[in-house]
Amino acid sequence: MRATIMHKAGDVRIENVPDPGIQEPTDALIRITRACICGSDLWPYNDLEPTPDGLPMGHEAIGIVDDVGSAVAALKPGQLVVMPFAFSDGTCMFCHEGLQTSCVHGGFFGSGGGIGGAQAEALRIPLAEGTLFGLPVGPDDELMPSLLTLSDVMGTGHHAAVTAKVRPGCSVAVIGDGAVGLCGVIAARRLGAEQIIIMGRHADRTALAREFGATDVVSERGEAAIERVRELTGGFGAHSVLECVGTEQAVVTAVSIARPGGAVGRVGVPHYEAVPSGQPTFFRNVSVAGGPAPVRAYIEELLPDVMEGRIEPGRVFDRTVDLDGVPDGYRAMNDREALKVMVAP
Amino acid sequence: MRATIMHKAGDVRIENVPDPGIQEPTDALIRITRACICGSDLWPYNDLEPTPDGLPMGHEAIGIVDDVGSAVAALKPGQLVVMPFAFSDGTCMFCHEGLQTSCVHGGFFGSGGGIGGAQAEALRIPLAEGTLFGLPVGPDDELMPSLLTLSDVMGTGHHAAVTAKVRPGCSVAVIGDGAVGLCGVIAARRLGAEQIIIMGRHADRTALAREFGATDVVSERGEAAIERVRELTGGFGAHSVLECVGTEQAVVTAVSIARPGGAVGRVGVPHYEAVPSGQPTFFRNVSVAGGPAPVRAYIEELLPDVMEGRIEPGRVFDRTVDLDGVPDGYRAMNDREALKVMVAP
Repeated sequence: MRATIMHKAGDVRIENVPDPGIQEPTDALIRITRACICGSDLWPYNDLEPTPDGLPMGHEAIGIVDDVGSAVAALKPGQLVVMPFAFSDGTCMFCHEGLQTSCVHGGFFGSGGGIGGAQAEALRIPLAEGTLFGLPVGPDDELMPSLLTLSDVMGTGHHAAVTAKVRPGCSVAVIGDGAVGLCGVIAARRLGAEQIIIMGRHADRTALAREFGATDVVSERGEAAIERVRELTGGFGAHSVLECVGTEQAVVTAVSIARPGGAVGRVGVPHYEAVPSGQPTFFRNVSVAGGPAPVRAYIEELLPDVMEGRIEPGRVFDRTVDLDGVPDGYRAMNDREALKVMVAP
Repeated sequence: MRATIMHKAGDVRIENVPDPGIQEPTDALIRITRACICGSDLWPYNDLEPTPDGLPMGHEAIGIVDDVGSAVAALKPGQLVVMPFAFSDGTCMFCHEGLQTSCVHGGFFGSGGGIGGAQAEALRIPLAEGTLFGLPVGPDDELMPSLLTLSDVMGTGHHAAVTAKVRPGCSVAVIGDGAVGLCGVIAARRLGAEQIIIMGRHADRTALAREFGATDVVSERGEAAIERVRELTGGFGAHSVLECVGTEQAVVTAVSIARPGGAVGRVGVPHYEAVPSGQPTFFRNVSVAGGPAPVRAYIEELLPDVMEGRIEPGRVFDRTVDLDGVPDGYRAMNDREALKVMVAP
């Protein structure tokens, strides 16, 4: 089959690789009908050292079950499923607590070591019953883009909002106008936030954020951005800050714009060593939480809102490519020419 | 009157100072009947640079109202009150939210700048109605030691437990066997924790922790301590970690022994710049919260348990001195000869 392999920074190729097969009784095989390119895929696109065998890419997908292992009873060939970016057994204590990204037997798609990527024609799904979630529509339903976001960005934006303790009437600042930040705006609105400040400098993206419910746009950075958010929030900062970038500057900004007693929810993969401002966050009783989103836990909650059109996270996709178009899709996202690229293999 | 003044590290004196008087209509004057020396007083005792006018010391007290300003209606001369370590107006949005340590007009006792200390015969209380809490007993009641802890250490231990999300059935690790750590054990037990690991190396203190409800003692430090806590918690770490020290080593230990999805509650005043392990805490979804405890908010909740003897935080006091004994009280606490020293001026 054909799959997306990254060999080094900037070098993404579509290659013929061996077809995946059932290896464990708990596996399923899916034929990918929709995948996408993630903002987090741009980190290796910018800094991956040359890798002899290359890395299989992609961790977000919708697909049709093709085959299942002998221990898989809850999934049937032909069924349409959404695949969270992490696989999980569904039975360990962390899965029971809704923290599937810490599953004791789990792991992440597109991470190599025998685990394939979703920007491909097909994919082996370990621990299929705990991982996949059946969808009540056909593979060409017009809701595909929004349903696809349940595999990562919508669940991740929701996790940022949950860990930043968004609640009805509160003020929210969202750092980052990428797909996750925009889904964070949707999540904050959905959870009842009254003021939602999107922080970003791409006019088309902040315009979409306004359509999703953002009430204010801050395009400044650094100290000027901190000052502007404080002005917009009565001088004190926001109750909830969603950190959807992962750079040191973003997390410095995040802890600086949280009001006393406020909360920062981090979902940007950290490219920094320590969380800065250990003393100011202490004296203002600001909490810092978040991490890889247990999107598997959130699908059940978010799916009805997608099905009934109350949220439309699929609007973050502004380009669709086939597998051959994937390398240029990386380039386009990296150049900020595309917001988020959907792949229809 | 006589008051405790610290001039530089190791130099604590009892001096004659001007009697405090009502300065603002919202002030009260109290005659101190009980005060104490705090673990946090030992930081300047070890590192205060020579200070021309000296620092008035003490931020924990019980006293009798002597006089009130013209705007104070809810307090009467003769009334016995407990004084939280921070003063607060009781009317701003942060006070309404129960975060009195971020009161927009508030501040901290014993911080200089016209705000006196409680290790003295008397003290001016700014914003008296929002700050003081009336007690339903006389000034020599046998519950005095436990009631006195409501001014700081019991409320602070409770804050550590609350911000570390202690809940019924959970596992808790408490870092530090000082008075705050011991009160953290009481708080964790009170909130229903099933396993409570006290981390400290003073046998008499960890023995008291066991009487307060600790189920395990870890006397190792650093990597060995982390390893031991993981062993005691099934390999994963504790749900809730109460950081009651404030050193860099303590906070490194705290984030390392929290299980995935767990929470660290910091109440040790940070003597470090950044919260380390920004990536491991992210990938394990560990939250870090806490700060100066809004003890004013907690008195109402904790007082009934003290009054009815369900908790006995006053047992952390193992020495009582008069004002003349205060300098030696500092020495004894600094030498770990005394756990916590009560002052009866």
